[in-house]
Amino acid sequence: MQRNRQIILKSHVQGIPKESDFAIIEGGIPDLANGEFLIQNLYFSLEPAIRGWLEGKEAYFPPIPINGVVRGPTVGRVITSNNAHFHEGDIVFALNRWEDFSVCDDNTILLEKLTIHGNTPLSYYVGPLGGSGTTAYVGLHEIGHISSGQTVVVSAAAGATGSMVGQIAKLRGCKVIGIVGSDEKANSIVNELGMDAAINYKTCPDLASAVLELAPENVDVYFDNVGGPILDAMLTTMKIQGRIICCGMISDYNRTDNPNPITNLWQVVAKQLTMKGFLLHYYHNEIPAARKQLATWIADGKITVSEDITTGIAQTPAAFRRLMSGSTSGKALVEIDLV
Amino acid sequence: MQRNRQIILKSHVQGIPKESDFAIIEGGIPDLANGEFLIQNLYFSLEPAIRGWLEGKEAYFPPIPINGVVRGPTVGRVITSNNAHFHEGDIVFALNRWEDFSVCDDNTILLEKLTIHGNTPLSYYVGPLGGSGTTAYVGLHEIGHISSGQTVVVSAAAGATGSMVGQIAKLRGCKVIGIVGSDEKANSIVNELGMDAAINYKTCPDLASAVLELAPENVDVYFDNVGGPILDAMLTTMKIQGRIICCGMISDYNRTDNPNPITNLWQVVAKQLTMKGFLLHYYHNEIPAARKQLATWIADGKITVSEDITTGIAQTPAAFRRLMSGSTSGKALVEIDLV
Repeated sequence: MQRNRQIILKSHVQGIPKESDFAIIEGGIPDLANGEFLIQNLYFSLEPAIRGWLEGKEAYFPPIPINGVVRGPTVGRVITSNNAHFHEGDIVFALNRWEDFSVCDDNTILLEKLTIHGNTPLSYYVGPLGGSGTTAYVGLHEIGHISSGQTVVVSAAAGATGSMVGQIAKLRGCKVIGIVGSDEKANSIVNELGMDAAINYKTCPDLASAVLELAPENVDVYFDNVGGPILDAMLTTMKIQGRIICCGMISDYNRTDNPNPITNLWQVVAKQLTMKGFLLHYYHNEIPAARKQLATWIADGKITVSEDITTGIAQTPAAFRRLMSGSTSGKALVEIDLV
Repeated sequence: MQRNRQIILKSHVQGIPKESDFAIIEGGIPDLANGEFLIQNLYFSLEPAIRGWLEGKEAYFPPIPINGVVRGPTVGRVITSNNAHFHEGDIVFALNRWEDFSVCDDNTILLEKLTIHGNTPLSYYVGPLGGSGTTAYVGLHEIGHISSGQTVVVSAAAGATGSMVGQIAKLRGCKVIGIVGSDEKANSIVNELGMDAAINYKTCPDLASAVLELAPENVDVYFDNVGGPILDAMLTTMKIQGRIICCGMISDYNRTDNPNPITNLWQVVAKQLTMKGFLLHYYHNEIPAARKQLATWIADGKITVSEDITTGIAQTPAAFRRLMSGSTSGKALVEIDLV
């Protein structure tokens, strides 16, 4: 059998992950039991949620043990199969591990056989047509109830999900303001992704005032990818009956023992806001329609795909460190150098 | 014309209201314009929301100016009318002012002509059949989506709204835990109101652990009347997809410049919680059915009415101070000594 490179956790992560928190080893591939199939991973989807599994505590899923292979979503191709529903050559998305080869069965979390639309690059299925794009689409519609003429603010607006949120909201006729962490990203989301305005929170002395200057009508929908002080400021900018889609709180992922305090929660009562936490897998029935619409928009050139691709499995820890330090733009992923 | 005693604001309130923040004067009664009618107030409903209007800042409604008559919900009887829909003797609920006589018209906020069920005391229409009871009923059903077998926690459980929340949830077959601020209230909500368990947060070293000990299954619905540290603790006790009804944040009303920080908001994402701020007037279509069900339960002896009645308009500031310092039980109201 071929060698199976695996990225394991060497020490529990504190703060921003370091490359030395991880190591690469060569592991084996178990024989396939009945119902199992083997996939060769092609792309790793780097996501902030993975950070939560690296410090020995439960976060949606059990923590990854020391010397355990890191868990993460992948897109791969079926190599061999003892499962009647999956055949050699099928392309699948699933919550697998950072390794060349993963064993799946019908119970593998997030397992989905992908239908590739035309010549769409496979990498798109971990980003704009994968969790990032469908999260943006489903969150804006099912929780945000967006419609034409509304004002939408999105944080981490140059990120994998945020860049899709802003573009989808524009396509639905909304006014869109993106919050980002650099002037370069601010330029990019306005000039390349077509959002109406951008705010660099790192150089903005008063975020709430800056938002209200751009949106004196106040904000209908805030798509929150970051939590912390940005969420706290946004709470003061919302319209009566506004909706806050709580998709992630990345500002706390590197400091889970000392989360940022929120002091404006009173606004939830005063403005009758809805805040709703949101994980895509609870909306799995909405995903096919979302993906179909997104694929159409991409094929028609109406959505600009923004990817941050790192090549080589050995570079995964470094790429993940870059993601968690906020220096990537668009969907962060690893393209595996096939063995 | 008769004298019209009025309670005015003498100085902006800081912290817990003091009696010296108010004064009683004798004001006039304007002549009625076309469409107006005059009511003699019978009861004042004392509510934490009034606190928000006393410090010169906007809170749902404009602030009450210095020397302005304090705004508050009342139940009164129509004395004279230039309005075709309201007649002498009608009993009305409305957002009026702390005064003997108020002038209303069709645009008076919260204005409602009351239908009195049988021999029900009029005072019930400011409490269990008024805003407190209907808030509890509508919040539990429309936002909480309660059903039999669920676990419900309510804070300020001995208060006007909380005492109704606990009893309604019990009548719907839920397990109910009430959070209160004294052992006396803890005894009362279990032994007199029939809740399953009570926690005195002032003597409880770890509120979240105490809740989880009583509810190892975790909490489906938290009806939040207080915000602050109790809300922060409750965020860690919720079930996946749990609902938090944000009805009030009284813990911050006396300290609006320095609100309590919330550090567990991450749970909203991790547990996919819904937090929804809630003001009754947005659900006005649901109120008649709620009031009808509550009146039936009260007539059948299935709900115990808990009132804290102060007699005499001049005692209103003292009664309001007692409400805002947490020393009342049940619905706090003033029965006016008629002039």
